Amino acid sequence: MADTDLKVLGICGSLRKKSFNMAALRAAGELLPPGMSLHITSIADLPMFNQDVLDAGMPEPVKRFRTEVAQADGVLIASPEYNFSVTAPLKNAIDWASRPPDQPWQDKPIAIFSASPGPVGGARVQYDLRRILGQIWGHVLPRPEVFIGLAPSKFDADLRLTDETTRKFLTDLLVGFKAWIIRMQRK
Amino acid sequence: MADTDLKVLGICGSLRKKSFNMAALRAAGELLPPGMSLHITSIADLPMFNQDVLDAGMPEPVKRFRTEVAQADGVLIASPEYNFSVTAPLKNAIDWASRPPDQPWQDKPIAIFSASPGPVGGARVQYDLRRILGQIWGHVLPRPEVFIGLAPSKFDADLRLTDETTRKFLTDLLVGFKAWIIRMQRK
Amino acid sequence: MADTDLKVLGICGSLRKKSFNMAALRAAGELLPPGMSLHITSIADLPMFNQDVLDAGMPEPVKRFRTEVAQADGVLIASPEYNFSVTAPLKNAIDWASRPPDQPWQDKPIAIFSASPGPVGGARVQYDLRRILGQIWGHVLPRPEVFIGLAPSKFDADLRLTDETTRKFLTDLLVGFKAWIIRMQRK
Amino acid sequence: MADTDLKVLGICGSLRKKSFNMAALRAAGELLPPGMSLHITSIADLPMFNQDVLDAGMPEPVKRFRTEVAQADGVLIASPEYNFSVTAPLKNAIDWASRPPDQPWQDKPIAIFSASPGPVGGARVQYDLRRILGQIWGHVLPRPEVFIGLAPSKFDADLRLTDETTRKFLTDLLVGFKAWIIRMQRK
Repeated sequence: MADTDLKVLGICGSLRKKSFNMAALRAAGELLPPGMSLHITSIADLPMFNQDVLDAGMPEPVKRFRTEVAQADGVLIASPEYNFSVTAPLKNAIDWASRPPDQPWQDKPIAIFSASPGPVGGARVQYDLRRILGQIWGHVLPRPEVFIGLAPSKFDADLRLTDETTRKFLTDLLVGFKAWIIRMQRK
Repeated sequence: MADTDLKVLGICGSLRKKSFNMAALRAAGELLPPGMSLHITSIADLPMFNQDVLDAGMPEPVKRFRTEVAQADGVLIASPEYNFSVTAPLKNAIDWASRPPDQPWQDKPIAIFSASPGPVGGARVQYDLRRILGQIWGHVLPRPEVFIGLAPSKFDADLRLTDETTRKFLTDLLVGFKAWIIRMQRK
Repeated sequence: MADTDLKVLGICGSLRKKSFNMAALRAAGELLPPGMSLHITSIADLPMFNQDVLDAGMPEPVKRFRTEVAQADGVLIASPEYNFSVTAPLKNAIDWASRPPDQPWQDKPIAIFSASPGPVGGARVQYDLRRILGQIWGHVLPRPEVFIGLAPSKFDADLRLTDETTRKFLTDLLVGFKAWIIRMQRK
Repeated sequence: MADTDLKVLGICGSLRKKSFNMAALRAAGELLPPGMSLHITSIADLPMFNQDVLDAGMPEPVKRFRTEVAQADGVLIASPEYNFSVTAPLKNAIDWASRPPDQPWQDKPIAIFSASPGPVGGARVQYDLRRILGQIWGHVLPRPEVFIGLAPSKFDADLRLTDETTRKFLTDLLVGFKAWIIRMQRK
C-alpha cells in the first residue's frame, strides 16, 4: 500500500515537557505502517476558549490548529486522564476546532490511546473522549484499545518507548487505524 | 436508489404495550425512504442474561434475536430513558447479542432515537447508548439526534404519530441512516 | 462502636452461580467491622421491568426487594462490567426499586466494588453506576475504589477470597462505608 | 436560620462577558435564603494546567482560586455545555484545585445548574460534572436539577433574569443547597 500517503495529525492531551503521552506519540511515529506519516502538533499556544475572543477574530494559533485538523487524513490523540476525564488543554483544542464556519472534526477518522503512571492507563478518559468525539461526528476507531499503564517502567531515561509489548500494541493500533482511515474516506 | 434493499431491524427499549417508543418505531416504518424496509422485533422473550444459562445452551429467543441482528443491514433503536440511562431490557438484548462466538454488533450501522413524556426526550440515554454501542464496534449514526419530548401530545389515541414536525425529524433521521448504512457497508 | 447495628444489603450484579462478585460479597461479610451486618439478597427472581406489569400489581419479588432496600442502612453492590457498563439484572433491580410510591434509593448510603477476570476490574461500570445512583439521590461512597482484577487468581477452588491484598482493600472499603453510613444518617 | 453564615463560591464555566450562566449566577446572588452569601470568582486568569508550571511554583491566580474553594462552605457552578460535555475553562479550574498538597474539593458541598440558548439547557454537561466532581469526593446536590433552556428569552437586555419560573427554580435550588451544606458539614 505504498501508493497511499495518509497524513496523520498527532495531538497530546498533556502540556508537560516530559509527558509519557507525548513520548508514546513520538514512538508511534516510528511504528507507522508504510503509506502513513505523522505530524505532531502543539496545543500549548491555543488560548482558553472564549466566544468574545472568537468574535474579535480567530487567533492565529487557532487558525493553524483548525487547518491542521482539516487537512489531516486522521487524528491520533494520546492523552492522560485528569480527574477521571478529559484534560482541559485537549477539551479546549477540541472545542476551538469545532466552531463554525467549518467543523473539521466532522467525518474525521480518529484514534485514541493513553499512558499513565498508574496500573490502569486511562479507561475513563478514553470512554469520555470516544463519546464526545463521536457526538461531534468524528469516527473514532473502536479497537484495539491501548492503555499504557505503569508508564515510567516502559520508557528509558530519554523517554524512548522500550517496552516491546507496548510497541506491539501501538503497532497494532496504527495498522488498524490505517485501514479505518481508508474505509472512512470512502463516502 | 430503488435498487437497494436495506433491511432494518427495529428494537424498542420499553416492554410496555402502549410504549410511545414502539409507536414511534411503527411510524418510522411508514416514513422509510425507498429501498429500505423495517422489521420490528421483540426483546420481551429474552431471559435475563446469565452466563450459566448460556453455558447450558443458547435459549431459542436469544438465537432468534442474534440472527435478526446479524442479518440486518442496520439496527434502529427507540428507547426511553430509565433513571438517566439505558433500560434493562435493552441492555439485556445488547449483552446477549454481544457474546461469542460471533458478535453481531461489530460493524453494524445503528441509529437511535427516543421518546419520553417529559420535555427532554432522552438526552442521557442516547449519550450512554452511543458510547456503549460504539465500544462494541457498532457504527452509530451521529446526526440528526431525534428526541421526541412531550410524547403524549404528539400521538393520537391510537398511538399514531400525528405531529408533523416529529414526522419530519424521523424522516430526516431515516434518510441519513440510509446513507450511513450504504457508507458503512463499503469496507 | 459495638452500640451501632448497621444493616447492609448486599447486591450482586451477576446472576451466575460461580460469580466472582458474589464470592467477593460473601468475603465482605466476613470482613465487616463491628456493629455492621450483611444480608445478601438475590435479584434473580425480579421480572424484567415493564410498566404494564407494575400497573397490574407489584410482583411479590419486587415488593420483597424494595422492602429490603428501604430497610437497609446501606447497600453494598458488587458487579461485573458488561459491555463497558452496568449489567441488565442490576439496572433492572435499580429501576424496579426506583418507582413510586416511595423511592428507597433516595438518601441511601451505597458502596460499590467490582471483580473481573481481566486486569482492569470494572473502572467503567463503577463510573456509570456512581452517576446513575447519584442521580437518583443515593449517596455513593467516593473512596476507596476497589477493583478486583485478575479475579480467578485471587479466589480458591471453593471461591473463597484468598488474596490478602484484596482482603485488605475490602476491609478498608467496609470501614469507610461504616463511617459514611453513620455520617449520611445524620440529617 | 439567621445564625448561620454560609459562604458560597460561585464559578461560571464560560469566560464570555455576556454569558447567560454568569448572569444567572448573579441572579442567584439575589435569591439566596437568609444565612447564605455568594462570592462569584473568576477563572479567566488561571493558566492552562501544566505540571511543569506547577512544579516551578504554584501561580498566584491558582493559589487564590484554591484558597477560595477551600474556604467556601459550598460551591455553586453555572456552566454551559460545550460539545456535549464540560467546558475547558471549568475543567481546568477543577483540575488545578484538585492537585496536592491539599485537595479542596474533598467533602465540599457543590450545586450545579446550567443555562443555554437551545431548548435543552445542559443535561449532558451536568451529567458529566456530577460524575467528575463526585469522583473527586465533592458532594453534589442531587436535586432539584435546574436547566435554563431558551436563555435569551429569559433575561432582559441588561442580562437580568426576568423569567419568574426560572427565578423560582433557582430559589428552590438555593434553599435545597443550604440544607445540603448544613447536612454535609455534620461529619
